[in-house]
Amino acid sequence: MNYIDLAIEIIKKESFLCIGLDSAKDKIPSCLQNNEDPVFEFNKQIIDSTHDLVVAYKINLAFYESQGTEGWSSLDKTVRYLKNFPEVLIIADAKRGDIGNTSAEYAKAFYEKLNFDAITIAPYMGIDSVTPFLAFENKWAILLAITSNEGANDFQFNYLPDNQEYLYEQVIRKSLKWGNEKNMMYVVGATQAEHLVRVRKLAPKHFLLIPGVGAQGGNLVDVAKYGMNKSCGLIVNSSRAIIYASNQENFAIVAREKAVELQQEMKTLLKQYL
Amino acid sequence: MNYIDLAIEIIKKESFLCIGLDSAKDKIPSCLQNNEDPVFEFNKQIIDSTHDLVVAYKINLAFYESQGTEGWSSLDKTVRYLKNFPEVLIIADAKRGDIGNTSAEYAKAFYEKLNFDAITIAPYMGIDSVTPFLAFENKWAILLAITSNEGANDFQFNYLPDNQEYLYEQVIRKSLKWGNEKNMMYVVGATQAEHLVRVRKLAPKHFLLIPGVGAQGGNLVDVAKYGMNKSCGLIVNSSRAIIYASNQENFAIVAREKAVELQQEMKTLLKQYL
Repeated sequence: MNYIDLAIEIIKKESFLCIGLDSAKDKIPSCLQNNEDPVFEFNKQIIDSTHDLVVAYKINLAFYESQGTEGWSSLDKTVRYLKNFPEVLIIADAKRGDIGNTSAEYAKAFYEKLNFDAITIAPYMGIDSVTPFLAFENKWAILLAITSNEGANDFQFNYLPDNQEYLYEQVIRKSLKWGNEKNMMYVVGATQAEHLVRVRKLAPKHFLLIPGVGAQGGNLVDVAKYGMNKSCGLIVNSSRAIIYASNQENFAIVAREKAVELQQEMKTLLKQYL
Repeated sequence: MNYIDLAIEIIKKESFLCIGLDSAKDKIPSCLQNNEDPVFEFNKQIIDSTHDLVVAYKINLAFYESQGTEGWSSLDKTVRYLKNFPEVLIIADAKRGDIGNTSAEYAKAFYEKLNFDAITIAPYMGIDSVTPFLAFENKWAILLAITSNEGANDFQFNYLPDNQEYLYEQVIRKSLKWGNEKNMMYVVGATQAEHLVRVRKLAPKHFLLIPGVGAQGGNLVDVAKYGMNKSCGLIVNSSRAIIYASNQENFAIVAREKAVELQQEMKTLLKQYL
């Protein structure tokens, strides 16, 4: 999926919602536990129930890796199933990044073997840890700029007086030379909406992946106000607040209701700011 | 494996060598390709041929993830096989790190499901991305301080005037409050040996995992000179220079020869500095 396709999809669906499939085996409804692959069955039902409301699904690798080979199989099946919905971006939330030859191997793993459209990348190791993820057509590297957690305050807001910028701004500024808005996005936590203004000064055109709405307390109105650009330029993720809204047999219906709530808010915000 | 066990093992084996099992399916000898699981067979023969010379094996996850479910199975079998050698530390070189609940899930994946002893962690997301890895007895989080690649220069040497320190020093200084020398190590690239002096000022007791000797050009003598402490405090990794030294049927014998060369150098350095 390329930049224009994504922008068009947002307008068609009146949504910039991403649902995070943080599908922990011990948290999915008990009614699914006797299924051959409970995690895949859970994901399938969530996807069937919500795909017309979202522009992306974000799959959090940790919850699959913790189940070993079985989890890797659930992951593979989920991505394959999502290929039935080619209008939806499939993001691996994997926070990878290593020396060049290793990052190249991760790119093969996620873009080719698993057929994800995008992967989240941690920037600490610099240029050669990121560029191998930029060499694939219609694939996206999503670099961490500001994360939505408490620990974001430890290093990301280091002020660097030489360039009068924060570390997260340096990450964006440098990486703008490695890729462009057609193969890179940035993670900017919804809990740091006021910094979106600074991010937008550096990267006016890029899509931003915004985690932290919902369980983590981020505010959608502020995100739209400070972060939206002419193509919307936002993908807002919600994971636990949607997929775990009910642990009963009707979980997929309740998840849809929660997704509709967010989508309706987004529809209003798109009319207001786009 | 705990701190004292590791220190004793180094003295017994006269070695602080770690072999990196960056076992790419397309790079292992052709004589193994008809095996049921070529990557595991390759690892098994390397391990059988070298385990008396090393104190650790470091498994680079990328090379297993790029093979999908099959790769995850090779990984699982390799770690299980290594449990035959309980005197050897098993490191997952995975560069993980995410928001708290996700890091906790990664910790489960690597420490419990896969039964690794240690995992490498990227620090960009701060405290709650790291602390979940510190809550397991006799397990180790190995935090990236200085990496061995070109991109290390992008962010890790940012100078922070408020505390007169580099970013990598801030990472160490802050994380010293999150854990201690019994559950944390730091990655310090062998290509940056002169900075070992600064690292040792902050973390005199910690073990350091040193990548970059061999294919990446790091110098073992400098590493020992500037980095060794009273318990040795070093685990020096070599991957490609050992495991790919031959692609013929005698690959395991040649790998052993290369490992012996490094171990003999280490023996001399241990006598000189310990």
